[in-house]
Amino acid sequence: MKRTPIAQLFANSQQLGGTTVTVCGWVRSIRDMKNFGFVILNDGSCFNDVQVVMNRETLANYDDIAAQNTGASLKVTGELKLTPDAKQPFEIAAQSIEVLGASSPDYPLQKKRATTEFLRTIQHIRPRTNLFRAVFRIRSVAAMAIHEFFQSRGFVYVNTPIITTNDAEGAGEMFRVTTLDMTNPPLNEDGTIDWSRDFFGKPASLTVSGQLNAENFAMAFGDVYTFGPTFRAEDSNTKRHAAEFWMVEPEMAFADLNDDMDLAQAMLQSVITTVLEQCADELNMLNRFVDKGLLERLRHVATSDFARVTYTDAIAILEQAVADDHKFEYPVKWGVDLQTEHERYLTEQHFGKPTFVTDYPAGIKAFYMRLNDDGKTVAAVDCLVPGIGEIIGGSQREERLEVLERRIDELGMDKEQYRYYLDLRRYGTVEHAGFGLGFERLVMYLTGVDNIRDVLPHPRTVGHAEF
Amino acid sequence: MKRTPIAQLFANSQQLGGTTVTVCGWVRSIRDMKNFGFVILNDGSCFNDVQVVMNRETLANYDDIAAQNTGASLKVTGELKLTPDAKQPFEIAAQSIEVLGASSPDYPLQKKRATTEFLRTIQHIRPRTNLFRAVFRIRSVAAMAIHEFFQSRGFVYVNTPIITTNDAEGAGEMFRVTTLDMTNPPLNEDGTIDWSRDFFGKPASLTVSGQLNAENFAMAFGDVYTFGPTFRAEDSNTKRHAAEFWMVEPEMAFADLNDDMDLAQAMLQSVITTVLEQCADELNMLNRFVDKGLLERLRHVATSDFARVTYTDAIAILEQAVADDHKFEYPVKWGVDLQTEHERYLTEQHFGKPTFVTDYPAGIKAFYMRLNDDGKTVAAVDCLVPGIGEIIGGSQREERLEVLERRIDELGMDKEQYRYYLDLRRYGTVEHAGFGLGFERLVMYLTGVDNIRDVLPHPRTVGHAEF
Repeated sequence: MKRTPIAQLFANSQQLGGTTVTVCGWVRSIRDMKNFGFVILNDGSCFNDVQVVMNRETLANYDDIAAQNTGASLKVTGELKLTPDAKQPFEIAAQSIEVLGASSPDYPLQKKRATTEFLRTIQHIRPRTNLFRAVFRIRSVAAMAIHEFFQSRGFVYVNTPIITTNDAEGAGEMFRVTTLDMTNPPLNEDGTIDWSRDFFGKPASLTVSGQLNAENFAMAFGDVYTFGPTFRAEDSNTKRHAAEFWMVEPEMAFADLNDDMDLAQAMLQSVITTVLEQCADELNMLNRFVDKGLLERLRHVATSDFARVTYTDAIAILEQAVADDHKFEYPVKWGVDLQTEHERYLTEQHFGKPTFVTDYPAGIKAFYMRLNDDGKTVAAVDCLVPGIGEIIGGSQREERLEVLERRIDELGMDKEQYRYYLDLRRYGTVEHAGFGLGFERLVMYLTGVDNIRDVLPHPRTVGHAEF
Repeated sequence: MKRTPIAQLFANSQQLGGTTVTVCGWVRSIRDMKNFGFVILNDGSCFNDVQVVMNRETLANYDDIAAQNTGASLKVTGELKLTPDAKQPFEIAAQSIEVLGASSPDYPLQKKRATTEFLRTIQHIRPRTNLFRAVFRIRSVAAMAIHEFFQSRGFVYVNTPIITTNDAEGAGEMFRVTTLDMTNPPLNEDGTIDWSRDFFGKPASLTVSGQLNAENFAMAFGDVYTFGPTFRAEDSNTKRHAAEFWMVEPEMAFADLNDDMDLAQAMLQSVITTVLEQCADELNMLNRFVDKGLLERLRHVATSDFARVTYTDAIAILEQAVADDHKFEYPVKWGVDLQTEHERYLTEQHFGKPTFVTDYPAGIKAFYMRLNDDGKTVAAVDCLVPGIGEIIGGSQREERLEVLERRIDELGMDKEQYRYYLDLRRYGTVEHAGFGLGFERLVMYLTGVDNIRDVLPHPRTVGHAEF
């Protein structure tokens, strides 16, 4: 089917003025003025619609087209007429219009604005709305910008496995993966499940992070990154949590926590800059209808340094806020983890920009983070951004075999489970660091959309895995 | 840690000649000639090693370095000396060498060549071998080339869900995903599992394809693609099947089967061209040690048209081969699916190049493929490549509501399960087509590696999900 994407008409309208073009797309609205009419058509190739003008005198099937419902698909051939005085730079004067697929009056997207809650019940149709066409194009552009950022710096993309038999990290929150008949599973003599008869010969789960695997590859390639789905079986129903989400996890050999922060800031700024350049129409709409401060915030963050503060100093800032009568729901005290309200206070009110908090107490962070010389904090970093809270969590990894083994012992973990991980410290261990970026949180930040369910094509949350 | 990646030394050796550089990397070998010695170092930033020359007179810790084991990590500072007459364009005359992390004599990669079977037991270390550094860099470059191909053509990247409650396609071969206690699952009164108490409120599985979801987005954006993991719980132990693998699934609105084949050929040629350009060192090694015809084949395929033949004509070709005394294990007959031996005969012996086979009997293809006018074949296409067999499977989708409904009824499938999918045919249906590329099979084709276990970072197959 010979057609020109509408994006190309907008890109080349000056050259195409006066020529005959064919476009295909879906009807967003039709206005019948009796002797002439307007069809607003979109084909998804760009955010903009094209206006098709039809004339009863010259269009044989005028009445048929005028009677079409919103959502119908049409093939339109006509002259591209430049309209320098109008809002849109051109329109198409229809010579012929063919109905490819009709729609019906019960088409769920009618002119009146639908709520995002309602749109979640028609996830197969919602990408056709302005909101979701903006969100999902920005998601795609941001994903590509991430790949470009890392590849241009020589990072190797590694597809770490989704199914894992290492369920030590985050045990209770993992999804089991099985082919056993759950009604009648094979049992051992003691009544427990005989996992040796499951597909992988042992219990398997969905990964919560590719980091430990990525480290294997960082020790060969130096700089690597993952970008793939990860899973949490958390029974939490918040705007910021989904059971299935995408993570970006770079891992760098010969790098410390400062290198890690430099990388995180450069990556976020690079993605923001790309989206500002490539998604101007989408951002303008979002800035107008979803989040009035969006453009200003993104432009600011793209060019200014992020704040850096230690956990210990951050606690002091929060304690001062409490002393100054700021009310937090959760107590502030050295040694306890920061709550979202604390994170948002720091990044939104105190620093007013993205903020790295570093060097958390060892007790509230993962076993693999490098112990600082003070013996009580670890080289961890969280990146907090206004409106969202934590968007990145990273650390310098413990590269010293004996320190790591001691830590695993202290936590009562099974050293045999980490044999391979410890091997990396036995054979040419090096200083290394990395982080995990929650990709959906980044898309929320880029779009101003405040619910993770609206930045995932088909979100999976407690009780929900439709479509 | 200020260091220069070895890739940058090779890229800029002329400018860096005579200057002092610092590199970090892992020891591949050390030769101690008593008064001077050679350290071969690799940092993973490129395929090439760098040769470090050390002199007992000027290097205080000469003996310590000379005694290091293979696999140790070093930091070397020294003068980059151009060596125009030697095999390598430069070497580094060490001024200082620091041991970052020692290795040990039991380091599993010793000089003698290890089998790929053995290397699969040390997947955390194998990326440090020449073979796997080549394979996994090519994998990364190919992945990026795929993103670039689609993004440069305006395709929107869609992350279709991994967890699905739609288990109709390929029922028996899916992995169950659950948070129920399998030892003691909640039961209904009739003794069946009470899935309403599972995480998603109903039975959930790992996806076998993002296609049906991708179609939702093609009806909004026109051209979209997925690139993510998919799963098969098949109990098959072949060199070409893994339980977890990555798929690329483009979907185009306003497109038919010919557009689909044009896209597939252009994509494969674009990826091959990029890998030829960016991975010359890796391909040369593979061409020498793994597959002697690799480079010639890739260069040929990058520029020549693929063959196109209908299933019906392909059967005639195969029947002629049988008549000419060619022996196949499986019978050749119109109506039965092609076996790998048939596919390979067509692409390797008959056509001698990648081959599209189209228009298969409806009975052996999926319900959503568009029924041809003959009423017995569907607009399906498989792309076969020499050495591998099927690498791509695609089709034009059935866009006619009544034909699709009839087909679902004929197959005794549950129409309610496909309500959303049918909606796309109710509201502005359009001609559309897409395909699925098995990414690992492409990497096998690009590298000459003949076992899928050796192109996956950590392969998952029956009985195996280690690391």
